[in-house]
Amino acid sequence: MTETAVKDIKELKVHGRTTICREPLTLFWTASGFECNVSGSELWVEVEVTYDTYEPWFSYTVNGDWIGRQMLLKGRYWIPLFRGMNPDKIKNVRFYKDLQAMSDDGSSYIHIHALRHDGSFYPVEDKKLRIEFIGDSITSGEGLFGAKEEEDWIPMFFSSLRDYAYLTAKELDADYRVFSQSGWGVYNTWDNNRKGAIPKYYKEICSLMPGEENERLGGKQPHDFSKWQPDIVVINLGTNDAASFDQPEWVDEKTGERHKMRKNPDGSYCEDDIAAFEHAVVDFLYTLRECNPKAHMIWCYGMLGIPFQMPILEGISMYRKESKDSGVSYLQLPNVNDMSVGSRQHPGALCHKQAAEVLVDYIRQLV
Amino acid sequence: MTETAVKDIKELKVHGRTTICREPLTLFWTASGFECNVSGSELWVEVEVTYDTYEPWFSYTVNGDWIGRQMLLKGRYWIPLFRGMNPDKIKNVRFYKDLQAMSDDGSSYIHIHALRHDGSFYPVEDKKLRIEFIGDSITSGEGLFGAKEEEDWIPMFFSSLRDYAYLTAKELDADYRVFSQSGWGVYNTWDNNRKGAIPKYYKEICSLMPGEENERLGGKQPHDFSKWQPDIVVINLGTNDAASFDQPEWVDEKTGERHKMRKNPDGSYCEDDIAAFEHAVVDFLYTLRECNPKAHMIWCYGMLGIPFQMPILEGISMYRKESKDSGVSYLQLPNVNDMSVGSRQHPGALCHKQAAEVLVDYIRQLV
Amino acid sequence: MTETAVKDIKELKVHGRTTICREPLTLFWTASGFECNVSGSELWVEVEVTYDTYEPWFSYTVNGDWIGRQMLLKGRYWIPLFRGMNPDKIKNVRFYKDLQAMSDDGSSYIHIHALRHDGSFYPVEDKKLRIEFIGDSITSGEGLFGAKEEEDWIPMFFSSLRDYAYLTAKELDADYRVFSQSGWGVYNTWDNNRKGAIPKYYKEICSLMPGEENERLGGKQPHDFSKWQPDIVVINLGTNDAASFDQPEWVDEKTGERHKMRKNPDGSYCEDDIAAFEHAVVDFLYTLRECNPKAHMIWCYGMLGIPFQMPILEGISMYRKESKDSGVSYLQLPNVNDMSVGSRQHPGALCHKQAAEVLVDYIRQLV
Amino acid sequence: MTETAVKDIKELKVHGRTTICREPLTLFWTASGFECNVSGSELWVEVEVTYDTYEPWFSYTVNGDWIGRQMLLKGRYWIPLFRGMNPDKIKNVRFYKDLQAMSDDGSSYIHIHALRHDGSFYPVEDKKLRIEFIGDSITSGEGLFGAKEEEDWIPMFFSSLRDYAYLTAKELDADYRVFSQSGWGVYNTWDNNRKGAIPKYYKEICSLMPGEENERLGGKQPHDFSKWQPDIVVINLGTNDAASFDQPEWVDEKTGERHKMRKNPDGSYCEDDIAAFEHAVVDFLYTLRECNPKAHMIWCYGMLGIPFQMPILEGISMYRKESKDSGVSYLQLPNVNDMSVGSRQHPGALCHKQAAEVLVDYIRQLV
Repeated sequence: MTETAVKDIKELKVHGRTTICREPLTLFWTASGFECNVSGSELWVEVEVTYDTYEPWFSYTVNGDWIGRQMLLKGRYWIPLFRGMNPDKIKNVRFYKDLQAMSDDGSSYIHIHALRHDGSFYPVEDKKLRIEFIGDSITSGEGLFGAKEEEDWIPMFFSSLRDYAYLTAKELDADYRVFSQSGWGVYNTWDNNRKGAIPKYYKEICSLMPGEENERLGGKQPHDFSKWQPDIVVINLGTNDAASFDQPEWVDEKTGERHKMRKNPDGSYCEDDIAAFEHAVVDFLYTLRECNPKAHMIWCYGMLGIPFQMPILEGISMYRKESKDSGVSYLQLPNVNDMSVGSRQHPGALCHKQAAEVLVDYIRQLV
Repeated sequence: MTETAVKDIKELKVHGRTTICREPLTLFWTASGFECNVSGSELWVEVEVTYDTYEPWFSYTVNGDWIGRQMLLKGRYWIPLFRGMNPDKIKNVRFYKDLQAMSDDGSSYIHIHALRHDGSFYPVEDKKLRIEFIGDSITSGEGLFGAKEEEDWIPMFFSSLRDYAYLTAKELDADYRVFSQSGWGVYNTWDNNRKGAIPKYYKEICSLMPGEENERLGGKQPHDFSKWQPDIVVINLGTNDAASFDQPEWVDEKTGERHKMRKNPDGSYCEDDIAAFEHAVVDFLYTLRECNPKAHMIWCYGMLGIPFQMPILEGISMYRKESKDSGVSYLQLPNVNDMSVGSRQHPGALCHKQAAEVLVDYIRQLV
Repeated sequence: MTETAVKDIKELKVHGRTTICREPLTLFWTASGFECNVSGSELWVEVEVTYDTYEPWFSYTVNGDWIGRQMLLKGRYWIPLFRGMNPDKIKNVRFYKDLQAMSDDGSSYIHIHALRHDGSFYPVEDKKLRIEFIGDSITSGEGLFGAKEEEDWIPMFFSSLRDYAYLTAKELDADYRVFSQSGWGVYNTWDNNRKGAIPKYYKEICSLMPGEENERLGGKQPHDFSKWQPDIVVINLGTNDAASFDQPEWVDEKTGERHKMRKNPDGSYCEDDIAAFEHAVVDFLYTLRECNPKAHMIWCYGMLGIPFQMPILEGISMYRKESKDSGVSYLQLPNVNDMSVGSRQHPGALCHKQAAEVLVDYIRQLV
Repeated sequence: MTETAVKDIKELKVHGRTTICREPLTLFWTASGFECNVSGSELWVEVEVTYDTYEPWFSYTVNGDWIGRQMLLKGRYWIPLFRGMNPDKIKNVRFYKDLQAMSDDGSSYIHIHALRHDGSFYPVEDKKLRIEFIGDSITSGEGLFGAKEEEDWIPMFFSSLRDYAYLTAKELDADYRVFSQSGWGVYNTWDNNRKGAIPKYYKEICSLMPGEENERLGGKQPHDFSKWQPDIVVINLGTNDAASFDQPEWVDEKTGERHKMRKNPDGSYCEDDIAAFEHAVVDFLYTLRECNPKAHMIWCYGMLGIPFQMPILEGISMYRKESKDSGVSYLQLPNVNDMSVGSRQHPGALCHKQAAEVLVDYIRQLV
């Protein structure tokens, strides 16, 4: 058995936005991880795990089929991925961070140090199609594990391996990345916090993680978009912006700053606030286009209903008219129902499967 | 056995837009017909059928379940609907015109003269929900019968009993009407004929049927909207408008008039023509609102793909802004695929079923 | 338009057991009928229909897809099957008797006299696989039409086009015949009538139809098995034999003869009566083997539960041991449930579809 | 956080056949494990794991929903099951051994020593229905993990949480136990080894595990059937007996003993060998009846085809006649196909789901 540091495995393919550091490789985002083609009978991974409140979980596949999923304890240690396999065959192994970048816990990270094995590594080819998924809890796979009655907001109920992003990429044989945060929106969070606006963090590697540890790890550095240009950018946002109209005002405890998306006395949306949201959509599309010059952008919406569809459509329409950029479209995804709901009132595995089918069908028409 | 003229059966419920005449009752539209609750062992219907080219078909249900479907010959004659049933039970019978109002054959009509029976008639209650479906060939049920390879444009391949309108109304326990014409759009037909614009005919009973016979039957009279106000208006149009951009110019043989929706050399839509379409959407929504003051309007699209989604959305958005009317929304329906296609490259029974599920789910949220 | 007598259309393919007479062609059994390949724009069929109580129905397909279904009135008349089709294409048309040979109505027949057309006839190839289905109401398609609450035992609720026999043959691209009678069994009927034993009638064309008319038509003549040898014989019997143990004694009003399958006081089956049933199974298998020397025989059971499975299995086992004939096997079919039930507490379309899938899978392993 | 030894948690429910020892609790069989109802925010389990070749895996559920699955390393250590949950709510946790008793590795065991927690334990009620599943690789869940192309016979591809036994018990809300061994049969193994006959080991706790360690752990002690009497015994055996007719002779390397189930030159089964199998079925049914006096026994077969159905049916029939015991029946389960296959040419998750549906439907009719 040989132990090889990640930096020395040139055949290792890294998934997800991260820094150039490989001593160790740091995993920030949902579905980030590594992939390798390896011979030998056995494979282990050396992880280093930190967190204060929200422990990370991981899942992994062997030859494309889901094998295991477990909670990660603090510390640096070895985890077995397979053993007893035919040593001559080359196995494809993919390690997935099951938990999103956790903006509420500045210490929550998985670092990959090394692999222990008795075989050799072989190159992993890049897929012909690349997709980036930008979203909220739905795209973070919240609610894909756990019984329907579960209400705890904990890592155990997040997963990267049953969600529509994984399923879409698998069906289309695409490489993919996820950029998502539960509860966040285009303009503010579900509870009216303007800091929780996805667009504010899009240009850095992972700047929504707070604190010095993220600084040290490089998460706040600019992201080099030239290294991985997606063909398709899927934006699945708006659900939390909609919710904020029905939530109390946000008050920043330190600054006293306040914010609230308002409804009129008759229950309709306040026009100024809708306008603010729509401009946020427009601005985000400009940002996305700047960073991804050739990508087709698909704004998706609907897995938790379509009550906020018109403001999203207005934003897209405004951007298209202003920019003369026809490379953005809108796609409604299937609504969750009693049969397809998961835990925490979120879309479950069946709803994600249905959403992936619609998205796959649509992307096939584009490419 | 008793023969009772339609005019004398006060319990008979008439479905679909028609005139006040009951000697006989004339059926114009897809899914128009009659419904009765009747005891006795046997029931026959006396029809009078006319056509030049396109013969009508009908289907019927007994107690809500589809029993028969047949081509109708010219002439006035009796057709048996059931016999040998338990005479004491009350049966619900619904007669459906399977064929759309056929604008290409000014003689194509079904008239209902009388019922022959050995029981009594009982009132048919009105449903609590009313839906009007406005559309093109999809809403006329084209392609719901016939093998996939069929290409003939004939009545045999149209049906009112497998389409999303029927399925949606059945699931929601709603009364419904259909206003549809194969090949037509909001602004022009699939082949650029501006006469084939659904909005031009919406205010009359059935003014798109040509000729003197329609005049005589009263199809060109104004429709009295006050008699049947829908709660929901579903508009499923745009597919043919989109197609017209790829079709040759329309030339009116008599007047020499010409019309064509144009594309730019780079393949994009000509802005002026798109603007004309969008204004047609806006105008139609005003018309619909005028005629149906309290209805929620749902513009549906997508059963044959969503390439023309943005212009539809623009039109809806313009109307909402101008009118301050929030009672219109947009709903994407499931796209047809290899599994769900019917004959004549049209959505098949599975696609209509999937569309009905999405529409039912959405309408349930509204009402 | 030309009218051609059936006897003069040498390309016409006749389905189902019948006599050699073609002036007219008489249809006895469920799914019997004719098939033709024909060019031209239009096709009509001239039928002659008789009945006292139970009127026949028919269905037909064009190019393999179900087009129409209707009740047949008494008399001799023309029925249109298609019109307006592309005259140059050859259409495959198949006419199906929807109703079983009706042993309760000695006058219930469809006769086919002629076809009216404006094209030419072309040969219909024989399929490579031939299947005979022998059964009771399930195989007669009882309950495949009509709402779940229907209880009338009338022709309207029988159909040959949604049943597992049709679906199995279609999926396997096989020619098939149906020999079935509602309420009948291997040894007696559901209500203990020993005349209602399918095996007693197997060797004649259609000897279970009573009366002089059947005599005249030739139904009581020996069937010439050499003309159509099946590769597979499916026997779906036993459900009514099982039911008879729970039904009152049968008393023949004329002869005073009595019969009853008995249960012991503890609810178990009377051994002598079970033995009688089992011997009837054995005898029937000998008969089937004699008539169909090369066929594989599949005894199917289960669409209405499997409470009587062991006696059937005993019978099969006894036959196999005695005869050393391994060409018979047993296949359990899917049980009906709340979702898959049709009218009259019979298996509905979904249950028949599931049964066909199991049978197709099994036959594919045999051939 | 408190650490409580298993022996001190009187509310802990133990699943699966095992000894009375609780210091520690030893897990022998597939799906054996423990279940607890516990409050508090966090739960850990202390395991002690041993093996030479085949490492055990485990899965666990929280509130009935599958949460994690992982390979178990050698040694004694703590594994976290959940953390961060609402401490006031009572969580139901079930730990499942994913791997069968591994007759090829006399050291492969999981022992449960203690639980670490910050809440209290509450009683776990017994279910009203109890089912024992006896089987081979299918019942051991072989092939339920892993890509279709996998061929390695390793623990990673076995699972207790996707198999028909788990699904059946879950749907029926039943307690259940599994007694199974991959490759084994009623009379001999797939490769003609007569030691691999399930009936030989049925009366002891787990006597098929070899070696001194099993002796020490008590696996060879008689099983006390009085403590847990099933209502239903499902026997899913015969697949390997059938296979052995097509495999080479077994030669015992030590004793030189030889055995082979033979086919005749014409491909039919050798009658003597079939008779031996059938008698083994009869004998096993007597044994099962002796141990489970009140249980209904269901012999299931068919997930890998039904080529060997008749010998199984003969055996059941012989037993029923000899014993006058009508408490045994036969049930055919759905056959695997291209869509439902898993890894190692075994039934996959879909096939197990379909099998569970059939079995649930049948058991509901019995109880």
